[in-house]
Amino acid sequence: MYTVYGDMLSGNCYKIKLLLKLLGVEHQWVHVDIMAGETRTGAFLTMNPSGKVPVLAIDGREYLAESNAILNYLAEDSTYLPAGGMARAKVLEWQFFEQYSHEPYIAVARFINTFLGLPKGRLAEYEAKQAGGHKALAIMEQRLAKAPFLVGDTATIADISLYAYTHVAGEGGFSLARYPGVQKWLVRIERLPGYVSMARENA
Amino acid sequence: MYTVYGDMLSGNCYKIKLLLKLLGVEHQWVHVDIMAGETRTGAFLTMNPSGKVPVLAIDGREYLAESNAILNYLAEDSTYLPAGGMARAKVLEWQFFEQYSHEPYIAVARFINTFLGLPKGRLAEYEAKQAGGHKALAIMEQRLAKAPFLVGDTATIADISLYAYTHVAGEGGFSLARYPGVQKWLVRIERLPGYVSMARENA
Repeated sequence: MYTVYGDMLSGNCYKIKLLLKLLGVEHQWVHVDIMAGETRTGAFLTMNPSGKVPVLAIDGREYLAESNAILNYLAEDSTYLPAGGMARAKVLEWQFFEQYSHEPYIAVARFINTFLGLPKGRLAEYEAKQAGGHKALAIMEQRLAKAPFLVGDTATIADISLYAYTHVAGEGGFSLARYPGVQKWLVRIERLPGYVSMARENA
Repeated sequence: MYTVYGDMLSGNCYKIKLLLKLLGVEHQWVHVDIMAGETRTGAFLTMNPSGKVPVLAIDGREYLAESNAILNYLAEDSTYLPAGGMARAKVLEWQFFEQYSHEPYIAVARFINTFLGLPKGRLAEYEAKQAGGHKALAIMEQRLAKAPFLVGDTATIADISLYAYTHVAGEGGFSLARYPGVQKWLVRIERLPGYVSMARENA
């Protein structure tokens, strides 16, 4: 049995919920209150020394952290992860792009704006995130202007990784008006059988 | 035939050189001068819209970016990448940790200090990187104090990813004195057959 420790309002955690629902895989979800310090307890750090959600627990014996590593583990042998070769490598290329060139801008701007209420002390940081976020969106648009999904012709975990924070980019101040390919792709994801939205309350 | 576009003094590029040498795989190396704008040309952006090295070219037809995606592609079916299951997922866990929680601190501090000469205008940023870098090293030490490699009992591409910037962490102001497990692990990597050092001149 899988147990996921996470917060559904975190895009990194939502990725896992979305894939599990798309795959129809039974699991338990344990809400972790980051703001209350629940990722800093000894018990949590035993599961993940980095002190970050999400964490996947397998039968309460093995633990796996890092959202994109979890997606790769869960998607093995499904249509969401090509079996090998260049297609599989391209999935990873997008996922590393997501963690290095997309999430640190779009997710962090969203956090400062929506979760912290854009305090004056972090306004400069918020504004500094805008250029990098738009650069990432423009790179996605290059691909999605001419292809239905990020890799190949069907949805993969690369799409799930990038969908998580792109579909709430507006909460970080990023308008998607300039990215029509990205907008159409968001709808394509939302029509996948089993799709579940990022809940306003934790599931 | 593989062609790698990169700069050997970049840890992200050196990862690729190191794996290719450990595997004994023939390849061409094309030096890219980042400071001279060679990653911003139209030809380069066609290979990688992110404008970053390294890029792997396969027979001049297909291109793959993101250092850790390239490592996964090249290591398939070798001892450096477990075939599947939790071991393979743990390799990815460490590689995403590297890109999100290690490289942005240790590699960036090294760049500011060694390549830019620690200019006054970036001193505050350099100093702000120290805590995050030590946090990453402490997490590595937790594992390496009790195990020879990051995943399993033999070297994998997780080790190559983390070795790249850890072994030059001193250039970013990070002393490894507090991390004896990390120090012993560095030596273990350097004794692997085929090991090549980060060249002071580009190969």
